[in-house]
Amino acid sequence: MDTIEKGWFSEIHEDLLPGQAFSMRVKKVLHEEKSRYQDIQIVETTDYGRALILDGIIQCTLRDEFSYQEMISFLPLCAHPNPEKVLIVGGGDGGVAREAVKHPAVKEVHQVEIDDRVVELSKKYLPEMACGFDHPKLHLTIGDGFEYMKNHKNEFDVIITDSSDPIGPAVALFEESYYGLLKTALRPGGIVCSQGNNYWCGLDYCKSLLENCKKHFPTAAYAFTTIPSYPCGSIGFAIGCLDPERKLDEPLHVFTKAEVDKLNLRYYTSETHRASFVLPRFVEKALYES
Amino acid sequence: MDTIEKGWFSEIHEDLLPGQAFSMRVKKVLHEEKSRYQDIQIVETTDYGRALILDGIIQCTLRDEFSYQEMISFLPLCAHPNPEKVLIVGGGDGGVAREAVKHPAVKEVHQVEIDDRVVELSKKYLPEMACGFDHPKLHLTIGDGFEYMKNHKNEFDVIITDSSDPIGPAVALFEESYYGLLKTALRPGGIVCSQGNNYWCGLDYCKSLLENCKKHFPTAAYAFTTIPSYPCGSIGFAIGCLDPERKLDEPLHVFTKAEVDKLNLRYYTSETHRASFVLPRFVEKALYES
Repeated sequence: MDTIEKGWFSEIHEDLLPGQAFSMRVKKVLHEEKSRYQDIQIVETTDYGRALILDGIIQCTLRDEFSYQEMISFLPLCAHPNPEKVLIVGGGDGGVAREAVKHPAVKEVHQVEIDDRVVELSKKYLPEMACGFDHPKLHLTIGDGFEYMKNHKNEFDVIITDSSDPIGPAVALFEESYYGLLKTALRPGGIVCSQGNNYWCGLDYCKSLLENCKKHFPTAAYAFTTIPSYPCGSIGFAIGCLDPERKLDEPLHVFTKAEVDKLNLRYYTSETHRASFVLPRFVEKALYES
Repeated sequence: MDTIEKGWFSEIHEDLLPGQAFSMRVKKVLHEEKSRYQDIQIVETTDYGRALILDGIIQCTLRDEFSYQEMISFLPLCAHPNPEKVLIVGGGDGGVAREAVKHPAVKEVHQVEIDDRVVELSKKYLPEMACGFDHPKLHLTIGDGFEYMKNHKNEFDVIITDSSDPIGPAVALFEESYYGLLKTALRPGGIVCSQGNNYWCGLDYCKSLLENCKKHFPTAAYAFTTIPSYPCGSIGFAIGCLDPERKLDEPLHVFTKAEVDKLNLRYYTSETHRASFVLPRFVEKALYES
């Protein structure tokens, strides 16, 4: 927790992001603690609003979190013909829950988050995201996602894994065995979506994640969204589907712009859905042709 | 030139980018000088390769420059039915020239750069980009873009403005009068493309730039590309066309993937062309609906 110096927080991570850093000016440190699982910091920045930082890595800022939360939720939900029952693994800030419950076809959202302190602190300091926990469609369990899924087979239409980066407590959520477990928890035709690193600063990681996904899902693809407070300014999603005929880049629920605005979507549209799967040539080659 | 401390270069710009900074670790400062127009630094970074820095702002790094150079060149070139004669304003590192000469329909590329020191230093330290100056299609003039265009009316099919940010020497390249001048230098049906800031950290600027463009061009649109060493991880382009019927997001030259690879394009494809015009809902609303 020594990353705030002279009023600036700097995200420095020599393993995942050698030789680069993103910094935000901090107005006030609102809370710092070491939970059972991780270091938690909540800070008020001067230009990105409040920010949640876990183990020194920015998880979300109020200025740009909607990009990530909307896209990780609506990409899989809109690629599914009838996503009635959804599971969120992780997502302790509540932002993914806030988005997932919005989708008109969604009836129940179950969420399993391992660290109750992230949930409690988000409720206290980040109500703009934690409001997701208050929705009647949402059912929160504090516990381990692996254990939860072992006891919930053949149950969900969509599973969203909103994890921190592939180090520390979240590392298992990026492995092949995790995809095997996700598969068993899905109903036929189900879809999974996980945060998938960044193609500029973690292309090999994107590739191995997509390969792990492909081992268990006949349809798999990679999408991305721009978001300035994440490393390199964008983040990807690895998406898998049990239906070999599904086209993940073609939304089955197409929203008009009026519907998008009524759902208070600020990033996602049916057009950004399609475009988010279009990758730069060097990424396309690495992920699909090698 | 006091921005390199303890072996890190930090881009801090309180006017354009308040409260945030991007930093790269520097292995070696290769050159520093104050030219007639600006402070020039060329550094060797540990993870982004060599970088050109003007007035403390990163212009390009060898790791990711292709994203910007390809997109600012191929978006307008491929939206034009026959881009035979091209003008580049700025672009002293040579990267846009390197890309523009690649396009099969392009016969001549004229370039006017105000600062000969940027050209000379790029030739010495950044040959991967400055190789653009050696191409037989390329004709370089050292001088002022405004003066140049006043003497070259009705001459170009495509004009690419590869400028630094809208502060200091480049500020005039973002004003309405500049678009008026661009228009006079174009042939009928001509296209202009300028770097257009970033929708995350300069949305008002993107909007005013596009509005300036629209005042002189019946067709105008905004596109973007991801690039980690630019502020917020992406940069936009304001594109205008004298043909009111042209669809800028639909490439008229469609390349197969084999052609893309043969042209050594690492970001641009006909698919990224189309997708680059698809904007997040909050951007679409700000630029096109307000």
